[in-house]
Amino acid sequence: MSRSTAITFEIQEKCRSTRARTGQVRTQHGAFKTPVFMPVGTAGAVKAVSADDLERMDFDIILGNTYHLYLRPGTDIIEDAGGLHRFNAWNGSILTDSGGFQVFSLGELKKINDDGVIFKSHLDGSSHEFTPEKVVEIERILGSDIMMPLDYCVEYPTERSEASRAVNLTLDWLKRSVDTWKLISDKQALFGIVQGSTSKDTRTESAERTLEFDLPGYAVGGLSVGEPLDAMLEIAEHTIQYLPVEKPRYFMGLGSPVELLEAIALGYDMFDCVLPTRNARNATLFTQYGRMIIKAARYKRDYRPIDEECGCLTCRRYHRAYLRHLFNIGEPSALRLATIHNLYFLSDLMRRSRQAIATGTYSEFMEQFRSRFVSLEE
Amino acid sequence: MSRSTAITFEIQEKCRSTRARTGQVRTQHGAFKTPVFMPVGTAGAVKAVSADDLERMDFDIILGNTYHLYLRPGTDIIEDAGGLHRFNAWNGSILTDSGGFQVFSLGELKKINDDGVIFKSHLDGSSHEFTPEKVVEIERILGSDIMMPLDYCVEYPTERSEASRAVNLTLDWLKRSVDTWKLISDKQALFGIVQGSTSKDTRTESAERTLEFDLPGYAVGGLSVGEPLDAMLEIAEHTIQYLPVEKPRYFMGLGSPVELLEAIALGYDMFDCVLPTRNARNATLFTQYGRMIIKAARYKRDYRPIDEECGCLTCRRYHRAYLRHLFNIGEPSALRLATIHNLYFLSDLMRRSRQAIATGTYSEFMEQFRSRFVSLEE
Repeated sequence: MSRSTAITFEIQEKCRSTRARTGQVRTQHGAFKTPVFMPVGTAGAVKAVSADDLERMDFDIILGNTYHLYLRPGTDIIEDAGGLHRFNAWNGSILTDSGGFQVFSLGELKKINDDGVIFKSHLDGSSHEFTPEKVVEIERILGSDIMMPLDYCVEYPTERSEASRAVNLTLDWLKRSVDTWKLISDKQALFGIVQGSTSKDTRTESAERTLEFDLPGYAVGGLSVGEPLDAMLEIAEHTIQYLPVEKPRYFMGLGSPVELLEAIALGYDMFDCVLPTRNARNATLFTQYGRMIIKAARYKRDYRPIDEECGCLTCRRYHRAYLRHLFNIGEPSALRLATIHNLYFLSDLMRRSRQAIATGTYSEFMEQFRSRFVSLEE
Repeated sequence: MSRSTAITFEIQEKCRSTRARTGQVRTQHGAFKTPVFMPVGTAGAVKAVSADDLERMDFDIILGNTYHLYLRPGTDIIEDAGGLHRFNAWNGSILTDSGGFQVFSLGELKKINDDGVIFKSHLDGSSHEFTPEKVVEIERILGSDIMMPLDYCVEYPTERSEASRAVNLTLDWLKRSVDTWKLISDKQALFGIVQGSTSKDTRTESAERTLEFDLPGYAVGGLSVGEPLDAMLEIAEHTIQYLPVEKPRYFMGLGSPVELLEAIALGYDMFDCVLPTRNARNATLFTQYGRMIIKAARYKRDYRPIDEECGCLTCRRYHRAYLRHLFNIGEPSALRLATIHNLYFLSDLMRRSRQAIATGTYSEFMEQFRSRFVSLEE
């Protein structure tokens, strides 16, 4: 059943004290090491940086969003360009989100039925329909290496019956997605998404039935949507035991640096989140001691790099007082330099996690990071 | 009189058919080849790009603006950082504009008297005074390699009497600037600025009296402020005959690609202008065939680089349709990629001009460039 030619996953090292592991996923566009953080390039661009910046930060995979790209520039323009890799000049791997999460965030602008979802564009109010088949077809045109199927993501908190409906609809849609996927190129992988809100029973059911499709990888969706951290980690821990060890496991929409380390300890391999890039554009920077609001007056005459141990372009060349000045005068380059720092910080966090897993020191690494970082963590 | 240790200028090649020449200026922060285009880094940053980008484009000198830096971040903060080079992480040469032009552009917000100029900040309305002495003192703190003195720049058109007043006041202020300059470090050069609007007589007088100070270089100010192109070139040609051949000659505030080539043919060596960077942020790009409005619908499916012969980062990697998309979605990286292209275009134009001068083909080069570029030139 599984299209084993689309991607391969090889586990390399296993942590002795946690369920963390390192590995490598190989796609048609190269390989990436796991655990991996994937920058979010919503509309074909990771906000405020460009492909050359991301390459210099050693990222090997980025995200694209089917919903945004379908609306702008439009699937036909990307098809004409020869696919998303050619359109946005990104040579590495690309994972495309189905747009399910974005559509479900549209509130009154959407209508869900068994067939799919009818929604109005957030740009011009025009009406569109996404079905599971259509989403896979768009993703085929985009040419992403890993495609996410249309899923039904519920809010937190949610009624048990609604969580159950989401699980069933997501599974129906997955079947239709898989049927469509089987007809297309075997160069693109399709992942399954486990839903079920914060109820263990529905998560179990969702996981078990999703696994029946024997897919190249599995994702956990519908977490990190407002539930308490404890509940999130409990469900993440509960769910992962049903996901096959030999497949990459993707925790969607995570997260803050400490949350990422927690999820790695549970055995998750892949992560994405708009937090580091959005924070950066709001002048909020990651440091080993916690978050730094670079616009604060205290940095007016602070000529040290953002983080003295960071090796990013921004920290190697520019100081806090200058970055603060760039934000104060509304310089677009402030957004780029801040984004480069935050993304590099997470890329480096993943690199150090992989190293700690390989040397059997992951628990200590996580504890040490948490004890420092928590000081400024919200 | 002249502080010969601050900068040196060596003429390398002379054009046989025009007065164009190539040369090299050496400052305390390295050397730059002339003719040179200097990107304008008003408030310590060339808008939308950063020092690392400028280095990759092979720029060796940028501008800073005394008026803007004095207001934000403030001279004291730059002094604390150890000067402007340290503050904005720029290792090459820096020329600082006096702020005269900016202050005179403030309209009702300024009052000029013999002593200097009293003005209100465009940021918060606070009151400030610039005297010739104070400007040199600020520039000493900024640590620029080439300092421009406070001058009196008139609008176009202007009364003969007003042009004459501007010349006299600029000369009085120059004397006071030179007196202050002599007391400070001999690592910074001071240029004289010739004023006189579009009258040849006042230009002659201004040039002759400015030369008496025997300065390391001379600038022509008060041109490219709205006068017709013919009048500008006529005055530029008239004025330069009074400026010593062995000193660098700086045409302030120029200009468009074709204007730059004209001024090089007259013997000018140094140029600055906000046009390429401002145009870029407005999605207007230079190509060998003229200006390109990249937001236009015709580029929607145009997967060619902006200019197929351009070697800039943007043209080597990204295509027109993608750049158009980035502008359409309001991506900050659009501003950077466009700015990189326009600045590289001018840097490359200077490089090719120097090469043409060296090989005795400058006239042909200029005519060929003009015949192509003029098609879309305003």
